[in-house]
Amino acid sequence: MNNFEYYNPTRIIFGKDTHNQAGSYTAKYSKNILLHYGSSFVKQSGLLDKIKSSLDKANVNYTELGGVKPNPRLSLVHEGISICKERKIDFILALGGGSVIDSAKAIAMGVLYSGDVWDFYMGTSQPKKALPIGTILTIPAAGSESSTGTVITKEEGDLKRAVNSELLYPQFSILNPELAYSLPKYQVACGATDIMAHLMERYFTNTTHVSFIDRLLESTMITIKNTVPKLLKNSNDYDAWSQFMWAGTIAHNNLLNTGRVGDWASHDIEHEISGIYDVTHGAGLAVVFPAWMKYTMKHDINRFVQWASRVWDVNLDMFDLEGTACEGIRRLEEFYHSIGLGTRLIDLNIKDDRLQEMADKCTSNNTKKIGNFVSLDSHAIYEILCLAQ
Amino acid sequence: MNNFEYYNPTRIIFGKDTHNQAGSYTAKYSKNILLHYGSSFVKQSGLLDKIKSSLDKANVNYTELGGVKPNPRLSLVHEGISICKERKIDFILALGGGSVIDSAKAIAMGVLYSGDVWDFYMGTSQPKKALPIGTILTIPAAGSESSTGTVITKEEGDLKRAVNSELLYPQFSILNPELAYSLPKYQVACGATDIMAHLMERYFTNTTHVSFIDRLLESTMITIKNTVPKLLKNSNDYDAWSQFMWAGTIAHNNLLNTGRVGDWASHDIEHEISGIYDVTHGAGLAVVFPAWMKYTMKHDINRFVQWASRVWDVNLDMFDLEGTACEGIRRLEEFYHSIGLGTRLIDLNIKDDRLQEMADKCTSNNTKKIGNFVSLDSHAIYEILCLAQ
Repeated sequence: MNNFEYYNPTRIIFGKDTHNQAGSYTAKYSKNILLHYGSSFVKQSGLLDKIKSSLDKANVNYTELGGVKPNPRLSLVHEGISICKERKIDFILALGGGSVIDSAKAIAMGVLYSGDVWDFYMGTSQPKKALPIGTILTIPAAGSESSTGTVITKEEGDLKRAVNSELLYPQFSILNPELAYSLPKYQVACGATDIMAHLMERYFTNTTHVSFIDRLLESTMITIKNTVPKLLKNSNDYDAWSQFMWAGTIAHNNLLNTGRVGDWASHDIEHEISGIYDVTHGAGLAVVFPAWMKYTMKHDINRFVQWASRVWDVNLDMFDLEGTACEGIRRLEEFYHSIGLGTRLIDLNIKDDRLQEMADKCTSNNTKKIGNFVSLDSHAIYEILCLAQ
Repeated sequence: MNNFEYYNPTRIIFGKDTHNQAGSYTAKYSKNILLHYGSSFVKQSGLLDKIKSSLDKANVNYTELGGVKPNPRLSLVHEGISICKERKIDFILALGGGSVIDSAKAIAMGVLYSGDVWDFYMGTSQPKKALPIGTILTIPAAGSESSTGTVITKEEGDLKRAVNSELLYPQFSILNPELAYSLPKYQVACGATDIMAHLMERYFTNTTHVSFIDRLLESTMITIKNTVPKLLKNSNDYDAWSQFMWAGTIAHNNLLNTGRVGDWASHDIEHEISGIYDVTHGAGLAVVFPAWMKYTMKHDINRFVQWASRVWDVNLDMFDLEGTACEGIRRLEEFYHSIGLGTRLIDLNIKDDRLQEMADKCTSNNTKKIGNFVSLDSHAIYEILCLAQ
C-alpha cells in the first residue's frame, strides 16, 4: 500500500424528502446565491419550484442560471462567472447531475480568479480559492457531489479537460433517491456505466498489498451490478435506488483510491470521444472499457481473474486464467447490453475515420502517455480504439 | 435504508514516516499546545522524542501531559483541563491509542465549558464547542482517530460513559503502521477484537435494504480476519499492518453505519465489565459478543447465516440455518482463541458474584433497555452474562 492523504469534508444529507432542506443548509453559508441547473426537466417536474420555495423560506436570494448541457461548456461557465461577479454572489447551489455540478465548480473557481478559468483546465495555473458550493443531486453517475473534480468542454477545439482540487469539495450534497425516479432508462444505464468505470479505474492498479480496498471496490461493483436491473424494471424502487445512489457517491469520493494508483486511461480516451462526438460519457465508457481490458489483460492476468471471479461470479479455472479473465470481460459486456448500451464504436455512430486523430489528441500528438496500470502511447490507444470497432 | 447525514472532515495522513509531519500539521492550528500521551512506552521507544523534535522544528510550544491509562480516567482529564486553561492552550495533540485520544477529546470539551466536563458524559449537558485536536495513532483499535466518540471512566462509582459529537472529530490523524510494530501481542489481539466488534455492532441491524453497507462491513471484517494472524506471526509485516490499521479506522468513522441502526448492546455490557474489573476493552468484547450472539441469533437467523457464510466461509446449509449460524459463531470464537483471547468470563478472572449488579447498572436498575437489534432488559443481560460463563 502506498502512503496517502485522505480528506473529504462534504456533508451528505441522504434520503427521502431531503431536498426540502436545501434552503436551510444553504442559508448557513449565504443569503445571495447562484442557482445553477440544466435542462428544462427540473422545471417541468416541479423540482425547481420546490427548491426555490425552500430557498424563499430560508430567506435566501437567488439568481438563476439554467441551460447546462451534458459535457458542460466553457461558454456557460464564463456567463456564470460574470453574473456572480456582477451580483456579488458568494455561494453556488447546483441542482442536477455531474454536468451541472462540474459547471458550478468551474464558476466557483473562476469568480475568485483574475485570469481565464480555462487556465486551470489547461494546467497553466492552479486554483488558490473558490466559492463554496452545495449540490442537490438528481442523477447518480459522476460522483461530482462528493469529489474534488470538474470536467469542462471548451467548444473551440472540442477540448474536454479536468481539474482536481480540494477547494472543489461541495460543502454539502443533498441526495434524495426519489429525485432519480423519472430519469430516462438510457440515462440510468449511462450513470451505472460511469460509476462502474470509476470503480474499475481504481481497481486495475500495479500497487501491491491493497486487498482491503480491493474488497471494498468489489463490494461496490457488485452493488451496482445487482441494483441496476431492479431500477430499470421498476423506476420507483426506492430501496434499489438508495443503494445505487450511495454506492455511486462512494465510488468516486476518494476513499476507494486510498493507498493505490488507479489507471484512468479509459476515462482519458472516452473524453476524446465525447469531446468530438458529444456522446454521453457513460455510453462512451461502455465502449472503451472492454476494449481497454482486452488490450491490457495480460499485463496482470491474476488481477483480472480475481475481478472476474469475485465481481462476475465466473467459475475459477486456475488452469485457464486467460479464459477466466475473458469470461469476466464477456460478462461486463453482457451487463452493458442488458441495460441497453452498445459496446462498439459503431453503436455510437462513430466510424473509423478519426480514430488516429483521437489517439493523437489524447497523447498531445504522442508527446505523452496515458494510463498507470499500462502506459499507453498514441499507437496503443489507436489499437484499443480498433478493438472497440 | 434509513435517511442519514454523513460528515467526517478528519484529514488522514497515512503511511511510512508520516509521524515526522506532526509538527507541520500541528503548526497550521496552533503554536501553543498540550501534548497528551499515555504509558512510558512512547518514551522508551524514542517516539515521544521524535514528535517533540518535529514540534520544535515547526516552532510549536508544547506542554506535556502523560499518564493516560487504558480506560482513561476523569481525574487526569480534569488535570488536563486545568493546565490548558492556565496556559491558554488552544490545541491538543494526542499521541497514543484510543484511550489517549478519548482523554484528549474530553479535555478539548472541558476547556471551553464552565461546568464539569462529566456533565456531557452523564447527558445532563451538550457540548457546544471544543478545542481542535490532532492525533498520532499508535494502536489500531478504538477508531477514535476519526470518530465523534470519547469514552471516559469516572473512578468514583466505576462509571464508564460515552459522548458523541461532531465537535470531536480530530482535525487530522497521522497513521503510520510502523508505529504499531512493537505492540505486545495481547494488545494487538484486543485491538483486533475491538475493531471486529465495531463492525459487528453495525452489521446486526433490523434496518432492511442495506446490502451495500452489509458488503462493505463484510469486506472489512474479512480484512481483519485475514491480517491479524500475519501480524502476530511477523510483527514487522508492514503490508498486513497497513491493511489492518486502515480497516480499523474505516470500521468506526461512521461511514459503515450510514442508513442503518446498529445494535451496541455488547459495547454497553462490556463497559460495565471493564468499568468494574478494569479489563482491556477488546478482551471484554471477545467474551461478551459470542454470548450476545447465542442469545439473539434466532431474532434474525438469515442475517447470522449471511454473516457466517460470507465472512467465515461457512458452507451454507439452507436446510439447517441454525447450524450454519452456530458454525459462524463457533468460528468467531475459534478466531479469538487463535489470537490468544479467551471467550469466557472466567478467562478474565470474573466470577459470577457481580453479574446481576452489572446487568442492573447497565440498565439503570432495569429502568431502561439497551440494544437496537434486540432490546435487552436487566434480566436478558444477566442471561447473556450467564452464557458467557
